[in-house]
Amino acid sequence: MKEFTDEVRKIRQPNYPINPIIRDRWSPRSMTGEGMTDDELFPLFEAARWAPSSYNNQPWIFIYAHRDTPEWKPLFNLLVEGNQGWAKNAAVLVVIISKKTFYHNGKPSHTHSLDTGSAWMSLALEGTSRGYVVHGMEGFDYKKAPKALHIPKDFQVEAMAAIGKRAPKKKLPPELQKREVPSLRRPLEQILMKGRFKKRIGQA
Amino acid sequence: MKEFTDEVRKIRQPNYPINPIIRDRWSPRSMTGEGMTDDELFPLFEAARWAPSSYNNQPWIFIYAHRDTPEWKPLFNLLVEGNQGWAKNAAVLVVIISKKTFYHNGKPSHTHSLDTGSAWMSLALEGTSRGYVVHGMEGFDYKKAPKALHIPKDFQVEAMAAIGKRAPKKKLPPELQKREVPSLRRPLEQILMKGRFKKRIGQA
Repeated sequence: MKEFTDEVRKIRQPNYPINPIIRDRWSPRSMTGEGMTDDELFPLFEAARWAPSSYNNQPWIFIYAHRDTPEWKPLFNLLVEGNQGWAKNAAVLVVIISKKTFYHNGKPSHTHSLDTGSAWMSLALEGTSRGYVVHGMEGFDYKKAPKALHIPKDFQVEAMAAIGKRAPKKKLPPELQKREVPSLRRPLEQILMKGRFKKRIGQA
Repeated sequence: MKEFTDEVRKIRQPNYPINPIIRDRWSPRSMTGEGMTDDELFPLFEAARWAPSSYNNQPWIFIYAHRDTPEWKPLFNLLVEGNQGWAKNAAVLVVIISKKTFYHNGKPSHTHSLDTGSAWMSLALEGTSRGYVVHGMEGFDYKKAPKALHIPKDFQVEAMAAIGKRAPKKKLPPELQKREVPSLRRPLEQILMKGRFKKRIGQA
Protein backbone atom coordinates (compact mmCIF):
# COMPACT_ATOMS: atom_id res chain seq x y z
CA MET A 1 0.00 0.00 0.00
CA LYS A 2 2.67 2.52 0.93
CA GLU A 3 4.28 2.62 -2.51
CA PHE A 4 0.84 3.23 -4.01
CA THR A 5 0.09 6.27 -1.87
CA ASP A 6 3.63 7.61 -2.21
CA GLU A 7 3.32 7.68 -5.99
CA VAL A 8 0.17 9.83 -5.71
CA ARG A 9 1.60 12.20 -3.14
CA LYS A 10 4.56 13.02 -5.32
CA ILE A 11 2.27 14.10 -8.15
CA ARG A 12 -0.85 15.51 -6.53
CA GLN A 13 -0.46 18.52 -4.32
CA PRO A 14 -3.86 19.82 -3.22
CA ASN A 15 -4.21 23.54 -2.43
CA TYR A 16 -5.83 22.65 0.90
CA PRO A 17 -5.19 19.58 3.01
CA ILE A 18 -7.92 17.00 2.36
CA ASN A 19 -8.64 13.51 3.59
CA PRO A 20 -5.87 11.23 2.25
CA ILE A 21 -8.43 8.65 1.15
CA ILE A 22 -9.73 11.19 -1.39
CA ARG A 23 -6.35 12.45 -2.59
CA ASP A 24 -4.92 8.93 -2.90
CA ARG A 25 -7.76 7.48 -4.99
CA TRP A 26 -6.88 7.16 -8.64
CA SER A 27 -7.66 4.83 -11.53
CA PRO A 28 -4.83 2.48 -12.45
CA ARG A 29 -5.36 -0.16 -15.12
CA SER A 30 -2.74 -2.80 -14.35
CA MET A 31 -4.20 -5.84 -12.62
CA THR A 32 -2.84 -9.29 -11.89
CA GLY A 33 -5.60 -11.36 -13.48
CA GLU A 34 -6.40 -12.97 -10.14
CA GLY A 35 -9.96 -13.31 -8.87
CA MET A 36 -11.45 -11.81 -5.74
CA THR A 37 -13.64 -13.55 -3.20
CA ASP A 38 -17.02 -12.11 -2.24
CA ASP A 39 -15.51 -11.31 1.14
CA GLU A 40 -12.90 -9.17 -0.60
CA LEU A 41 -15.45 -7.61 -2.95
CA PHE A 42 -18.57 -6.98 -0.91
CA PRO A 43 -17.09 -4.36 1.44
CA LEU A 44 -16.81 -2.13 -1.64
CA PHE A 45 -20.54 -2.44 -2.30
CA GLU A 46 -21.21 -2.05 1.41
CA ALA A 47 -19.48 1.33 1.23
CA ALA A 48 -21.62 2.28 -1.79
CA ARG A 49 -24.71 1.32 0.17
CA TRP A 50 -24.25 4.16 2.67
CA ALA A 51 -24.14 6.98 0.11
CA PRO A 52 -26.64 9.83 0.34
CA SER A 53 -29.61 10.16 -2.00
CA SER A 54 -32.68 12.30 -2.42
CA TYR A 55 -35.42 10.99 -0.08
CA ASN A 56 -32.96 8.20 0.76
CA ASN A 57 -34.19 6.59 -2.46
CA GLN A 58 -30.94 4.65 -3.01
CA PRO A 59 -31.43 4.49 -6.77
CA TRP A 60 -28.17 2.58 -7.39
CA ILE A 61 -27.94 -1.04 -8.50
CA PHE A 62 -24.67 -2.85 -9.21
CA ILE A 63 -24.71 -5.73 -11.69
CA TYR A 64 -21.47 -7.62 -11.23
CA ALA A 65 -19.61 -10.62 -12.58
CA HIS A 66 -16.56 -12.47 -11.30
CA ARG A 67 -13.90 -13.52 -13.80
CA ASP A 68 -13.89 -17.20 -14.77
CA THR A 69 -17.64 -17.52 -14.26
CA PRO A 70 -20.48 -17.78 -16.82
CA GLU A 71 -21.61 -14.24 -15.88
CA TRP A 72 -18.34 -12.63 -17.01
CA LYS A 73 -18.72 -12.75 -20.78
CA PRO A 74 -21.96 -10.76 -21.21
CA LEU A 75 -20.40 -7.87 -19.26
CA PHE A 76 -16.94 -8.14 -20.84
CA ASN A 77 -18.45 -8.16 -24.34
CA LEU A 78 -20.01 -4.75 -23.75
CA LEU A 79 -16.59 -3.10 -23.42
CA VAL A 80 -14.86 -1.34 -26.30
CA GLU A 81 -11.72 -3.06 -27.51
CA GLY A 82 -9.47 -0.51 -25.84
CA ASN A 83 -10.92 -1.32 -22.45
CA GLN A 84 -11.02 -5.08 -23.06
CA GLY A 85 -7.25 -4.95 -23.58
CA TRP A 86 -6.58 -4.23 -19.91
CA ALA A 87 -9.89 -5.04 -18.20
CA LYS A 88 -9.40 -8.70 -19.15
CA ASN A 89 -7.18 -8.85 -16.06
CA ALA A 90 -9.90 -7.54 -13.74
CA ALA A 91 -11.29 -9.76 -11.02
CA VAL A 92 -14.76 -8.31 -11.30
CA LEU A 93 -16.71 -6.23 -13.82
CA VAL A 94 -19.58 -4.04 -12.72
CA VAL A 95 -22.38 -2.29 -14.59
CA ILE A 96 -23.74 0.61 -12.57
CA ILE A 97 -27.38 1.48 -13.16
CA SER A 98 -29.83 3.86 -11.50
CA LYS A 99 -33.59 3.90 -11.07
CA LYS A 100 -34.97 7.00 -12.78
CA THR A 101 -38.02 7.23 -10.55
CA PHE A 102 -38.62 7.18 -6.81
CA TYR A 103 -39.43 3.82 -5.31
CA HIS A 104 -42.05 5.31 -2.98
CA ASN A 105 -44.19 7.16 -5.53
CA GLY A 106 -42.94 6.40 -9.05
CA LYS A 107 -42.25 10.08 -9.82
CA PRO A 108 -39.14 11.09 -11.80
CA SER A 109 -36.07 11.96 -9.77
CA HIS A 110 -33.75 14.81 -10.72
CA THR A 111 -30.85 13.25 -8.86
CA HIS A 112 -30.86 9.52 -9.67
CA SER A 113 -27.60 9.79 -11.62
CA LEU A 114 -25.96 12.20 -9.17
CA ASP A 115 -26.96 10.00 -6.23
CA THR A 116 -25.60 6.95 -8.00
CA GLY A 117 -22.38 8.85 -8.55
CA SER A 118 -22.06 9.30 -4.81
CA ALA A 119 -22.48 5.55 -4.33
CA TRP A 120 -19.94 4.92 -7.08
CA MET A 121 -17.48 7.25 -5.35
CA SER A 122 -17.94 5.39 -2.04
CA LEU A 123 -17.19 2.14 -3.84
CA ALA A 124 -14.10 3.61 -5.50
CA LEU A 125 -12.78 5.09 -2.27
CA GLU A 126 -13.33 1.91 -0.30
CA GLY A 127 -11.71 -0.23 -2.98
CA THR A 128 -8.73 2.00 -3.61
CA SER A 129 -8.06 2.39 0.10
CA ARG A 130 -7.91 -1.39 0.29
CA GLY A 131 -5.26 -1.48 -2.42
CA TYR A 132 -7.47 -2.64 -5.27
CA VAL A 133 -7.81 -1.14 -8.71
CA VAL A 134 -11.25 0.42 -9.14
CA HIS A 135 -11.48 1.93 -12.61
CA GLY A 136 -14.65 3.48 -14.01
CA MET A 137 -15.41 3.19 -17.72
CA GLU A 138 -17.61 5.01 -20.19
CA GLY A 139 -16.09 3.02 -23.06
CA PHE A 140 -18.74 0.34 -23.57
CA ASP A 141 -21.92 -0.20 -25.52
CA TYR A 142 -24.63 1.77 -23.70
CA LYS A 143 -27.22 0.73 -26.28
CA LYS A 144 -26.62 -2.99 -26.01
CA ALA A 145 -26.33 -3.10 -22.22
CA PRO A 146 -30.07 -3.01 -21.34
CA LYS A 147 -30.93 -5.96 -23.59
CA ALA A 148 -27.81 -7.95 -22.71
CA LEU A 149 -28.42 -7.60 -18.98
CA HIS A 150 -32.25 -7.52 -18.93
CA ILE A 151 -32.31 -4.00 -17.52
CA PRO A 152 -35.87 -2.58 -17.34
CA LYS A 153 -36.76 0.75 -18.94
CA ASP A 154 -37.08 2.65 -15.69
CA PHE A 155 -33.37 2.14 -15.04
CA GLN A 156 -30.56 4.12 -16.65
CA VAL A 157 -27.19 2.61 -17.51
CA GLU A 158 -24.63 4.90 -15.90
CA ALA A 159 -21.15 3.41 -16.23
CA MET A 160 -19.06 0.27 -15.93
CA ALA A 161 -16.16 -0.43 -13.59
CA ALA A 162 -13.28 -2.86 -13.48
CA ILE A 163 -12.12 -4.03 -10.07
CA GLY A 164 -9.08 -6.16 -9.36
CA LYS A 165 -5.75 -6.73 -7.70
CA ARG A 166 -3.04 -4.26 -8.62
CA ALA A 167 -0.06 -5.26 -10.70
CA PRO A 168 3.11 -3.39 -11.68
CA LYS A 169 2.59 -1.21 -14.73
CA LYS A 170 4.92 -3.33 -16.85
CA LYS A 171 2.10 -5.88 -17.06
CA LEU A 172 0.24 -3.41 -19.32
CA PRO A 173 0.72 -3.03 -23.10
CA PRO A 174 3.42 -0.37 -23.75
CA GLU A 175 0.98 2.35 -24.88
CA LEU A 176 -0.93 2.07 -21.59
CA GLN A 177 2.18 2.05 -19.39
CA LYS A 178 2.67 5.74 -20.15
CA ARG A 179 -0.85 6.50 -18.89
CA GLU A 180 -0.45 4.50 -15.65
CA VAL A 181 -0.02 7.60 -13.52
CA PRO A 182 -2.40 9.59 -11.25
CA SER A 183 -4.13 12.33 -13.23
CA LEU A 184 -4.12 16.01 -12.28
CA ARG A 185 -7.03 18.45 -12.10
CA ARG A 186 -8.04 21.93 -13.24
CA PRO A 187 -7.34 24.73 -10.79
CA LEU A 188 -9.97 25.11 -8.07
CA GLU A 189 -11.02 28.54 -9.36
CA GLN A 190 -12.24 26.92 -12.59
CA ILE A 191 -14.86 24.81 -10.81
CA LEU A 192 -15.99 27.42 -8.28
CA MET A 193 -18.29 30.31 -9.13
CA LYS A 194 -19.51 32.86 -6.63
CA GLY A 195 -23.23 33.69 -6.80
CA ARG A 196 -23.85 32.85 -10.46
CA PHE A 197 -22.36 31.17 -13.50
CA LYS A 198 -19.40 33.07 -14.88
CA LYS A 199 -17.06 32.63 -17.76
CA ARG A 200 -14.33 30.33 -16.55
CA ILE A 201 -10.91 31.72 -15.79
CA GLY A 202 -8.22 30.30 -18.05
CA GLN A 203 -8.73 27.63 -20.67
CA ALA A 204 -11.25 24.81 -20.56
CA MET B 1 -16.64 15.44 16.74
CA LYS B 2 -16.74 12.36 18.91
CA GLU B 3 -20.39 12.72 19.88
CA PHE B 4 -21.28 13.08 16.21
CA THR B 5 -19.63 9.83 15.17
CA ASP B 6 -20.89 7.98 18.25
CA GLU B 7 -24.48 8.80 17.34
CA VAL B 8 -23.99 7.24 13.91
CA ARG B 9 -22.22 4.14 15.15
CA LYS B 10 -25.07 3.31 17.49
CA ILE B 11 -27.53 3.30 14.61
CA ARG B 12 -25.61 2.14 11.55
CA GLN B 13 -24.09 -1.30 11.62
CA PRO B 14 -22.61 -2.18 8.23
CA ASN B 15 -22.44 -5.86 7.21
CA TYR B 16 -18.76 -5.43 6.38
CA PRO B 17 -16.30 -3.05 8.00
CA ILE B 18 -15.93 0.05 5.83
CA ASN B 19 -13.96 3.26 6.09
CA PRO B 20 -15.39 5.24 9.03
CA ILE B 21 -15.49 8.43 6.95
CA ILE B 22 -18.13 6.77 4.75
CA ARG B 23 -20.17 5.22 7.54
CA ASP B 24 -20.12 8.39 9.63
CA ARG B 25 -21.31 10.74 6.88
CA TRP B 26 -24.93 11.69 7.22
CA SER B 27 -27.15 14.68 6.51
CA PRO B 28 -28.19 16.63 9.60
CA ARG B 29 -30.18 19.84 9.24
CA SER B 30 -29.49 21.73 12.45
CA MET B 31 -26.97 24.54 11.97
CA THR B 32 -25.93 27.45 14.16
CA GLY B 33 -26.53 30.29 11.70
CA GLU B 34 -22.86 31.25 11.82
CA GLY B 35 -20.87 31.94 8.67
CA MET B 36 -17.81 30.09 7.41
CA THR B 37 -14.63 31.60 6.06
CA ASP B 38 -13.29 30.62 2.66
CA ASP B 39 -10.47 28.84 4.47
CA GLU B 40 -13.06 26.71 6.24
CA LEU B 41 -15.10 26.18 3.08
CA PHE B 42 -12.62 25.69 0.26
CA PRO B 43 -11.12 22.39 1.49
CA LEU B 44 -14.55 20.87 0.79
CA PHE B 45 -14.38 21.99 -2.84
CA GLU B 46 -10.75 20.94 -2.99
CA ALA B 47 -11.88 17.41 -2.08
CA ALA B 48 -14.52 17.55 -4.82
CA ARG B 49 -11.85 18.59 -7.28
CA TRP B 50 -10.05 15.24 -7.05
CA ALA B 51 -13.03 13.08 -7.97
CA PRO B 52 -12.82 10.73 -10.97
CA SER B 53 -14.55 11.47 -14.27
CA SER B 54 -14.72 10.06 -17.75
CA TYR B 55 -11.69 11.30 -19.75
CA ASN B 56 -10.87 13.35 -16.62
CA ASN B 57 -13.43 15.82 -17.97
CA GLN B 58 -14.26 17.22 -14.51
CA PRO B 59 -17.77 18.27 -15.55
CA TRP B 60 -18.67 19.66 -12.10
CA ILE B 61 -19.12 23.33 -11.26
CA PHE B 62 -20.14 24.63 -7.84
CA ILE B 63 -22.01 27.94 -7.66
CA TYR B 64 -21.87 29.06 -4.05
CA ALA B 65 -22.99 31.90 -1.81
CA HIS B 66 -22.04 32.84 1.73
CA ARG B 67 -24.79 33.92 4.12
CA ASP B 68 -25.07 37.67 4.78
CA THR B 69 -23.76 38.53 1.31
CA PRO B 70 -25.61 39.83 -1.79
CA GLU B 71 -25.13 36.44 -3.48
CA TRP B 72 -27.16 34.55 -0.85
CA LYS B 73 -30.69 35.56 -1.80
CA PRO B 74 -30.82 34.32 -5.42
CA LEU B 75 -29.76 30.85 -4.23
CA PHE B 76 -31.94 30.84 -1.10
CA ASN B 77 -34.99 31.88 -3.11
CA LEU B 78 -34.73 28.76 -5.26
CA LEU B 79 -35.37 26.48 -2.27
CA VAL B 80 -38.82 25.11 -1.45
CA GLU B 81 -40.30 26.45 1.76
CA GLY B 82 -39.61 23.24 3.66
CA ASN B 83 -35.90 23.54 2.96
CA GLN B 84 -35.79 27.29 3.58
CA GLY B 85 -37.07 26.61 7.08
CA TRP B 86 -33.81 25.01 8.19
CA ALA B 87 -31.36 26.01 5.44
CA LYS B 88 -31.71 29.63 6.56
CA ASN B 89 -29.15 28.71 9.21
CA ALA B 90 -26.61 27.45 6.69
CA ALA B 91 -23.30 29.25 6.27
CA VAL B 92 -23.14 28.53 2.56
CA LEU B 93 -25.56 27.44 -0.15
CA VAL B 94 -24.33 25.62 -3.23
CA VAL B 95 -25.88 24.83 -6.60
CA ILE B 96 -24.18 21.87 -8.22
CA ILE B 97 -24.18 21.81 -12.01
CA SER B 98 -22.52 19.61 -14.63
CA LYS B 99 -21.36 20.16 -18.19
CA LYS B 100 -23.29 17.80 -20.47
CA THR B 101 -20.57 17.64 -23.09
CA PHE B 102 -16.84 16.98 -23.07
CA TYR B 103 -14.62 20.03 -22.88
CA HIS B 104 -12.12 18.57 -25.35
CA ASN B 105 -14.49 17.73 -28.22
CA GLY B 106 -17.99 19.00 -27.41
CA LYS B 107 -19.54 15.53 -27.67
CA PRO B 108 -22.24 14.42 -25.21
CA SER B 109 -21.05 12.59 -22.12
CA HIS B 110 -22.96 9.63 -20.65
CA THR B 111 -21.47 10.22 -17.22
CA HIS B 112 -21.57 13.96 -16.55
CA SER B 113 -24.14 13.55 -13.77
CA LEU B 114 -22.56 10.42 -12.34
CA ASP B 115 -19.13 12.06 -12.36
CA THR B 116 -20.55 15.13 -10.66
CA GLY B 117 -22.07 12.83 -8.06
CA SER B 118 -18.62 11.54 -7.25
CA ALA B 119 -17.39 15.11 -6.76
CA TRP B 120 -20.43 15.87 -4.62
CA MET B 121 -19.67 12.80 -2.49
CA SER B 122 -16.07 13.95 -2.01
CA LEU B 123 -17.36 17.32 -0.86
CA ALA B 124 -19.84 15.72 1.54
CA LEU B 125 -17.26 13.36 3.00
CA GLU B 126 -14.68 16.08 3.47
CA GLY B 127 -17.19 18.43 5.07
CA THR B 128 -18.81 15.89 7.36
CA SER B 129 -15.44 14.57 8.51
CA ARG B 130 -14.60 18.15 9.51
CA GLY B 131 -17.74 18.33 11.65
CA TYR B 132 -19.82 20.49 9.31
CA VAL B 133 -23.34 19.85 8.11
CA VAL B 134 -23.34 19.06 4.39
CA HIS B 135 -26.91 18.40 3.29
CA GLY B 136 -27.89 17.77 -0.33
CA MET B 137 -31.27 18.99 -1.58
CA GLU B 138 -33.54 18.18 -4.49
CA GLY B 139 -36.24 20.45 -3.07
CA PHE B 140 -35.72 23.60 -5.10
CA ASP B 141 -36.87 25.11 -8.38
CA TYR B 142 -34.92 23.33 -11.11
CA LYS B 143 -36.70 25.34 -13.80
CA LYS B 144 -35.88 28.75 -12.36
CA ALA B 145 -32.28 27.98 -11.46
CA PRO B 146 -30.70 28.38 -14.94
CA LYS B 147 -32.17 31.83 -15.49
CA ALA B 148 -31.60 33.01 -11.91
CA LEU B 149 -27.94 31.97 -11.98
CA HIS B 150 -27.13 32.58 -15.68
CA ILE B 151 -26.39 28.90 -16.28
CA PRO B 152 -25.77 28.13 -19.99
CA LYS B 153 -27.74 25.44 -21.81
CA ASP B 154 -24.89 22.97 -22.02
CA PHE B 155 -24.91 22.66 -18.23
CA GLN B 156 -27.39 20.60 -16.20
CA VAL B 157 -28.61 21.64 -12.76
CA GLU B 158 -27.98 18.64 -10.54
CA ALA B 159 -28.73 19.51 -6.92
CA MET B 160 -28.27 22.07 -4.18
CA ALA B 161 -26.50 21.71 -0.86
CA ALA B 162 -26.52 23.51 2.46
CA ILE B 163 -23.26 23.69 4.38
CA GLY B 164 -22.81 25.03 7.88
CA LYS B 165 -21.76 24.61 11.48
CA ARG B 166 -23.64 21.95 13.40
CA ALA B 167 -26.06 22.83 16.16
CA PRO B 168 -27.99 20.67 18.64
CA LYS B 169 -31.20 19.34 17.17
CA LYS B 170 -33.32 21.42 19.54
CA LYS B 171 -32.52 24.41 17.34
CA LEU B 172 -34.76 22.86 14.66
CA PRO B 173 -38.55 23.23 14.42
CA PRO B 174 -40.20 20.33 16.34
CA GLU B 175 -41.29 18.41 13.22
CA LEU B 176 -37.69 18.30 11.97
CA GLN B 177 -36.20 17.30 15.32
CA LYS B 178 -37.68 13.81 14.88
CA ARG B 179 -35.89 13.46 11.54
CA GLU B 180 -32.49 14.60 12.88
CA VAL B 181 -31.08 11.09 12.94
CA PRO B 182 -28.79 9.13 10.59
CA SER B 183 -30.84 7.23 8.01
CA LEU B 184 -30.60 3.50 7.36
CA ARG B 185 -30.29 1.64 4.08
CA ARG B 186 -31.81 -1.27 2.17
CA PRO B 187 -30.08 -4.62 2.63
CA LEU B 188 -27.01 -5.10 0.44
CA GLU B 189 -28.66 -7.92 -1.53
CA GLN B 190 -31.24 -5.45 -2.87
CA ILE B 191 -28.62 -3.33 -4.64
CA LEU B 192 -26.42 -6.18 -5.89
CA MET B 193 -27.31 -8.36 -8.88
CA LYS B 194 -25.12 -11.12 -10.20
CA GLY B 195 -24.67 -11.22 -13.99
CA ARG B 196 -27.92 -9.52 -15.00
CA PHE B 197 -30.85 -7.51 -13.69
CA LYS B 198 -33.11 -9.56 -11.46
CA LYS B 199 -36.27 -8.95 -9.58
CA ARG B 200 -35.24 -7.48 -6.26
CA ILE B 201 -35.43 -9.61 -3.18
CA GLY B 202 -37.88 -8.25 -0.61
CA GLN B 203 -39.84 -5.04 -0.98
CA ALA B 204 -38.73 -1.91 -2.74
